[in-house]
Amino acid sequence: MQPAHLLQQVAFIKEIDKLKYIQRKTKLFNSERHENDAEHSWHLAMMTIVLAEHSNKPIDVLKVVKMVLIHDIVEIDAGDTFIYDTAKNHTNTEEELLAAKRIFGLLPAEQAADFIAVWKEFEDGITDEAKFARSMDRFEPLLQNTSNNGGTWKEFDVSYEKVYDKKKAIKEGSAGIWKYAENLINESVEKGILKK
Amino acid sequence: MQPAHLLQQVAFIKEIDKLKYIQRKTKLFNSERHENDAEHSWHLAMMTIVLAEHSNKPIDVLKVVKMVLIHDIVEIDAGDTFIYDTAKNHTNTEEELLAAKRIFGLLPAEQAADFIAVWKEFEDGITDEAKFARSMDRFEPLLQNTSNNGGTWKEFDVSYEKVYDKKKAIKEGSAGIWKYAENLINESVEKGILKK
Repeated sequence: MQPAHLLQQVAFIKEIDKLKYIQRKTKLFNSERHENDAEHSWHLAMMTIVLAEHSNKPIDVLKVVKMVLIHDIVEIDAGDTFIYDTAKNHTNTEEELLAAKRIFGLLPAEQAADFIAVWKEFEDGITDEAKFARSMDRFEPLLQNTSNNGGTWKEFDVSYEKVYDKKKAIKEGSAGIWKYAENLINESVEKGILKK
Repeated sequence: MQPAHLLQQVAFIKEIDKLKYIQRKTKLFNSERHENDAEHSWHLAMMTIVLAEHSNKPIDVLKVVKMVLIHDIVEIDAGDTFIYDTAKNHTNTEEELLAAKRIFGLLPAEQAADFIAVWKEFEDGITDEAKFARSMDRFEPLLQNTSNNGGTWKEFDVSYEKVYDKKKAIKEGSAGIWKYAENLINESVEKGILKK
C-alpha cells in the first residue's frame, strides 16, 4: 500500500465523475431520456459478465470489463461521437489520444500506462477481448433502438445498410449474438422502424 | 453457446435498465444533480479496479467488480435506502431478497443462482471480497460529500458520530484507505461542513 498512489488515484476518481455529464445520442429503453456515458459503461460491463459465454473465443472477462468501463472516458475531453456521424470518425483520433494521456495520466505512472494500453487495445479491436468488448458496444444501442420504436435510426434517418454495416462487427465477438442481432435488424425493417 | 440462454439474458439486460432511474440521496461531485444507481455502480467498479492494491487481503478483483456492479439492482423493486435513515434498515430485508429472486431470476437458472449468491455475499460482508466492495460503497459518498460542501450530511443534519460509525467499515476492506478517509472526516469537522 502506497499512500502517494492513493492521492493520485483519488484525483482520478474525482475527475472521471465528469463522464456522468456526457450525453449519448441513444435513449434509455422505452424512454425519451438520453443515456449518459457512465450509465452506458455500467450496462456494457453487466452485459459482458452476463453474455461472456457467447464469445467466439475464450476471453479474460476482467480485461473486457475494464475495457468497457473505461472505453468512453476520453470523451470527457473529446466529446461523444455519434456512430453514424459522417463528418467525424470515431476511430482513435489525435484528440482522444491526448485525452487518454491527460486523464489516465492522473494515475500513478504504471497504472496510467496500463489503462492507456487497455484503452488502445479496445480501439484497435484486434484481440479477442477487444472484439468482444466492441460487440457489446454495438449490441446495447441495437437493443435500445428496437425497444424505442426505431430510436436514433428514425431520429437521424439512418438506413438499413448503414446499420447493418456498423452492427456486423458484433459477429467478430460472437457469432451467436450476431445471429440474434441480425434477426432484430431484419425484423425492424418488417416493422417499419428501419428503412431499407 | 445456448440460444435459449441468450433470450433470457436479453430480457435481464433490458430489465436492469431501470437502475438508471433510481435516484440516490447523494449528488455528483461539485453538483446539485442527484446520482443514480447505475452511475454509482459504474463509479464503484472503477474505484475497485483502481484501488485494489490497497485491499487488506488479496482479492479476486473480478468478483468484487461483479459485486459492486450488481449490488443495487434489487433497488429496482425495493427502492433506494438512505444509509442514515433510522426508520428503514438497509441490511438484507425480505423485500430485497424477493427483488433479487425476481430480477436475477430472469437469467438462466445457473447464472441466476450465481448472481443471487454474489449479491448475498456482498450483503453479508464477511468475505475479503465483500469487505473490499463494501469499503468502496462507503468511500464514494464520502468523497462526494467532502467535494459538495457537506452534501447529504448538511442536507439531512447528520452528525460526525453517525458518519464515523458508518464509515469505519472502510477499515475492514482497507486500513490504508480508512486512514485517508478518517482524515477527511476530521478535516470536515474543522472546515465546519460536518458538526461534532
